[in-house]
Amino acid sequence: METQSKESIAEYRQLHPADLADRLQRLPVEEARDIVVRLPSSIAAAAIAELEHEPSSELLSTLSSEQVAGFLGRMSSTDAADVAGDLTDEQRAETLADLPPDQSARVNALLQYPSDTAGGIMSDRFISLRADQTIQQCQEMLRGRDDVQSDDVSYLYVTDAKQKLLGVVSLRDLVFKKPERRIEEIMNRDVRSIRVDADQEEIARQFEHYHYLALPVLDHLGRIVGIVRANDVIEVAQDEATEDMQLMVGLSGEERALTPWHKSIRTRLPWLCVNLATAFLAAAVVGLFEQTIARWTVLAIFLPIVAGQGGNSGAQTLTVIIRDLALGEISRGDGRKALLKELMLGTANGLAIGLVVGVISYFWKGQAILGMVVGLAMLLNMIAAALSGVLIPFGLRAAKVDPALASSIFVTTVTDVAGFFFFLGLATLALRWWGGVI
Amino acid sequence: METQSKESIAEYRQLHPADLADRLQRLPVEEARDIVVRLPSSIAAAAIAELEHEPSSELLSTLSSEQVAGFLGRMSSTDAADVAGDLTDEQRAETLADLPPDQSARVNALLQYPSDTAGGIMSDRFISLRADQTIQQCQEMLRGRDDVQSDDVSYLYVTDAKQKLLGVVSLRDLVFKKPERRIEEIMNRDVRSIRVDADQEEIARQFEHYHYLALPVLDHLGRIVGIVRANDVIEVAQDEATEDMQLMVGLSGEERALTPWHKSIRTRLPWLCVNLATAFLAAAVVGLFEQTIARWTVLAIFLPIVAGQGGNSGAQTLTVIIRDLALGEISRGDGRKALLKELMLGTANGLAIGLVVGVISYFWKGQAILGMVVGLAMLLNMIAAALSGVLIPFGLRAAKVDPALASSIFVTTVTDVAGFFFFLGLATLALRWWGGVI
Repeated sequence: METQSKESIAEYRQLHPADLADRLQRLPVEEARDIVVRLPSSIAAAAIAELEHEPSSELLSTLSSEQVAGFLGRMSSTDAADVAGDLTDEQRAETLADLPPDQSARVNALLQYPSDTAGGIMSDRFISLRADQTIQQCQEMLRGRDDVQSDDVSYLYVTDAKQKLLGVVSLRDLVFKKPERRIEEIMNRDVRSIRVDADQEEIARQFEHYHYLALPVLDHLGRIVGIVRANDVIEVAQDEATEDMQLMVGLSGEERALTPWHKSIRTRLPWLCVNLATAFLAAAVVGLFEQTIARWTVLAIFLPIVAGQGGNSGAQTLTVIIRDLALGEISRGDGRKALLKELMLGTANGLAIGLVVGVISYFWKGQAILGMVVGLAMLLNMIAAALSGVLIPFGLRAAKVDPALASSIFVTTVTDVAGFFFFLGLATLALRWWGGVI
Repeated sequence: METQSKESIAEYRQLHPADLADRLQRLPVEEARDIVVRLPSSIAAAAIAELEHEPSSELLSTLSSEQVAGFLGRMSSTDAADVAGDLTDEQRAETLADLPPDQSARVNALLQYPSDTAGGIMSDRFISLRADQTIQQCQEMLRGRDDVQSDDVSYLYVTDAKQKLLGVVSLRDLVFKKPERRIEEIMNRDVRSIRVDADQEEIARQFEHYHYLALPVLDHLGRIVGIVRANDVIEVAQDEATEDMQLMVGLSGEERALTPWHKSIRTRLPWLCVNLATAFLAAAVVGLFEQTIARWTVLAIFLPIVAGQGGNSGAQTLTVIIRDLALGEISRGDGRKALLKELMLGTANGLAIGLVVGVISYFWKGQAILGMVVGLAMLLNMIAAALSGVLIPFGLRAAKVDPALASSIFVTTVTDVAGFFFFLGLATLALRWWGGVI
């Protein structure tokens, strides 16, 4: 047993920290802990920095604050702040007290920023130059800084004495231009930046739209406090997309396939209860027409068809709208155009599907009036689906709520309620007018 | 009129190419064309490179091949190849013939790679150094190359005489190490790379997992043919997520809110027809129990509740699985664990929801047996939802189809059919046993 573990420790040491983290979060927390404490600290620290939030919280809760501080001390401040964010308040206070004062202050500064803002995803490792320095002075400064990694220096940011951002120079210019020139002569003053409180979804949009490799992050006084790099934004883009998909169907936005079921149920069950309430609403609509169904039982067979087609059609509209809103590809002004398009589509699809359903229903049950009722209800429901698929996400956004939030549940409610109302309402009218022939 | 247009040309010139492209693709194609031909070629070319595929195709089809070649000549080969991909075969051949032979060859080489592979997203602007050169030789070479932008030189790739990749050096090392040393002495031999035919979704996964800033792209002989940078991968990550969301509900994967309705209908309507077929399947199941419904009409009211809850529950499971599969967060070996989790969740949710539904139904309609039938059917259907939400995407993947493809339609079919079967089947049995008391 002992030998086996030793073997696997040797094996774990060979892994990339990201892969090691993957392995650790698949193990029971006690096993993960045993491995982490037996690995060299620097390797363990690198892997801990790569853990997802939940496994990280769990694992860290089994360690003493001295142990955690030991690991944080071997990480960049950015990583240390992310990991410290996974600690309980008490454990975090103790751990920060155990860090060297300098690093503790940096981590603390980063912890002030919400995790889904520029401040939460930025790195505080960047190089700033003073505008009045010469190229030679800067080269010497760079040569002396051993803490700087090659990733950090594609761009160098130029500031005044108060750290206010003035411009940017590329390392290439710094290397190949005449050493006696001043930075302010060679810098590019047209430098884009983001505010430290900018939302990460908006940042992902900007990076995608303008193909930035990195952007400086400024505080409210225009001072540079960090940088966000394109490789950090890839994860943001994926997380935001995952969140959108999950919120639409009433998931937490952060659930994973292997999240323990007793955690998943906390978000899923409440939304299923909301959905249940809306389902009873739809059922109540059916209940209004109980007499009609009692006289014309075959209607019950068509209920799922009318509701199902409306639901799917609504889901199509909704998915396009939610995604375009999230990616910033439609603005408020485009809402009207999008609605018009969806109404055209809903009507065209509704005519086609309504006709097909009507004809099939006629041949299946031999009742022409049934075919007309089903077909017409289908057309109307698909128009309702188009309307709700556009208006619900735009409405949620107007109410300052994430447009994805449970929107699929709301759209299904509309298509169920409207579908049953149109279908059974038309059927009731048909019974009244042509009751004799049905 | 003339004055107005002139004013807007001046205004358009001020825009970032990406923003100019956004404006152009919202205009009717004739207007966009008028603006493009009146803008300075370099500005127009930069904007054309930023257009989405469809608007790009439309706009280019209104230009002569000389005009298109004029624009392509002002783009990087990568952009030129992307834009040339939007031309018709005939127009592309003519345009390439109008380009200088050197650029034509480069664009042609890039056009050989499918657009969703490393070759399709890579840039062919990278700097390769020879391992046997000295640092000084390399510095002089770099100083002389005016075509190189600062973006291109965070990393420099080291090759042998046959362009085979041997290692990587950072610009920083190249600048600050002793000029007489050879590249092979300072290079890092542990360089990661991707194959030119690697799938872009897999590339996005790798960049996210390992936080790469850039990766060299190798052909099948190990020769470097391009690089992929993190900022290009953000768009890939967003496109892949959009595709997953859209495929799930039967959209093309590339639809936008403002895609013309007559184009959208081509993908949407066929899937709605597939869904219609499955809805008739569900209806046929209801049809099997027409006698039961005729005797016990109130059952019809509960049909949408049983089906709707099952559908929502299935959508929750499916969304988690699809997204984790796409992001590579669950491997085949995890399928069993994920299934187990979802079965636990489905059972727990099913017991809770089944109990609530049963009790409400009892109080609403005053029939204890109805409550039992509804509650039990709900439990069984939520287990069916969990099963299908896991097995359908894994099954699609095993069949080498995108797991997202129309999976939501398939899951809904299962939950509709199973839900109606359980509910009406149990109701039929109940009628048989306790027919007297209902």
